[in-house]
Amino acid sequence: MTPFAALHHADAPLLLPNAWDHASAALLAAQGFAAIGTTSLGVAAAAGLPDGAAATRDLTVRLARLGAGPYLLSVDAEDGFAQDPSEVAELASELAAAGAVGINLEDGLGPADLHAAKIAAVKAAVPDLFVNARTDTHWLGDGVDERETVRRLDAYQQAGADGVFVPGLADPARVTALLKTLDVPLNILYSPAGPPVSHLADLGVRRISLGSYLYRRALGAALDAMADIRSGRPPRGIAPTYDEVQALSAQDRTS
Amino acid sequence: MTPFAALHHADAPLLLPNAWDHASAALLAAQGFAAIGTTSLGVAAAAGLPDGAAATRDLTVRLARLGAGPYLLSVDAEDGFAQDPSEVAELASELAAAGAVGINLEDGLGPADLHAAKIAAVKAAVPDLFVNARTDTHWLGDGVDERETVRRLDAYQQAGADGVFVPGLADPARVTALLKTLDVPLNILYSPAGPPVSHLADLGVRRISLGSYLYRRALGAALDAMADIRSGRPPRGIAPTYDEVQALSAQDRTS
Repeated sequence: MTPFAALHHADAPLLLPNAWDHASAALLAAQGFAAIGTTSLGVAAAAGLPDGAAATRDLTVRLARLGAGPYLLSVDAEDGFAQDPSEVAELASELAAAGAVGINLEDGLGPADLHAAKIAAVKAAVPDLFVNARTDTHWLGDGVDERETVRRLDAYQQAGADGVFVPGLADPARVTALLKTLDVPLNILYSPAGPPVSHLADLGVRRISLGSYLYRRALGAALDAMADIRSGRPPRGIAPTYDEVQALSAQDRTS
Repeated sequence: MTPFAALHHADAPLLLPNAWDHASAALLAAQGFAAIGTTSLGVAAAAGLPDGAAATRDLTVRLARLGAGPYLLSVDAEDGFAQDPSEVAELASELAAAGAVGINLEDGLGPADLHAAKIAAVKAAVPDLFVNARTDTHWLGDGVDERETVRRLDAYQQAGADGVFVPGLADPARVTALLKTLDVPLNILYSPAGPPVSHLADLGVRRISLGSYLYRRALGAALDAMADIRSGRPPRGIAPTYDEVQALSAQDRTS
């Protein structure tokens, strides 16, 4: 088992903050998070491109170079930016070569057998890359028929997924019911409106990720600060200094 | 006078928020800011590169494409990423072609005559690009001998600078004294520890920019949110929704 896979089977669940650039990844890692995820919304919106539209393959590969840093990096790669499983396997190889130890692949509610084929192709090409297989039954669908979620996740497990991810699912009773059907770790998307981390841990969730929240909160804080400054109020909240942020890059130059 | 230059000669000073990516620029513009700046620290740190080291020329030109959006964009271009004035003029032409209406050029305390030559070359190549000439006597130097600041800014004005910028200068008496020596608008860097916007406006400052602060506050807010979540506290503060952030890119696709 790789060090990143082991984090899904430790005493506490893996709490995975999602960064959107080098500085956010480095600062989060410095807070003691051994593993960092990325957010495809953050990567896309930063470049003025749509999320979930396969527009950011190159940017995502470039971002995977963050995995060469002093932390484990798992990359959110939408649907693999391709429908051909061999192309997704090629992407996964590039991400792993760049430094990533994990990948998120979402089904976008497309055909489950196609998504399973992508997962199988990735695992065949890069066996050590942790594949977190995401179904969008709750994110894009209404999540009403949980048999569809179970059916999809079962196919993804069979294809070799190392973990499964159901963003939008947060109801404790449904999480508990779903866990009974799974052999691999379940990843839940944290929501400020949902159960706290400790509650998700008690339920048996093995990975709790932040998705786009930290990026969106960062944007919100910039807007808040600017509104305060315009109104003559001193802006609130912490900010790393210029030198602290500059040092994040300087460290890399010497490593 | 261009629309961007006119903002430096209006009733109120130009309050210029500095964005670091497409989403932050679009969201700040939506708050009613007609002009947006960029931050070279944000651009560099996001990519894991050092600021002020001429490492981000390509990223900066790419960022200038934000100027094709529904707001005026002024780009922080460090020292022009070159020592040859003709190369800096070429950069300025590329930035203007991409959509920028202004450029910041910093002297880094290098030779004032070289910096003046860069300014003159830029104005000759792209007369309508607003050149904000920055001296680093306070930012990198000790700012004690204000005659050096005056000498440098005078040379930059003579070379054709449309405005001048002295980051690190905030003392009201010194701002007032400096203003008496200037013929072009003075830009001061806002600091949470310094005078509020209204005070700077009363002194006669014509442009107040945020530098890297909003980017650094954004990073700080992400760290704060993650610390709260890890500790079981609900994170505080606003965050735009997934759909709101995604719509920033969708808007661009249709324009």
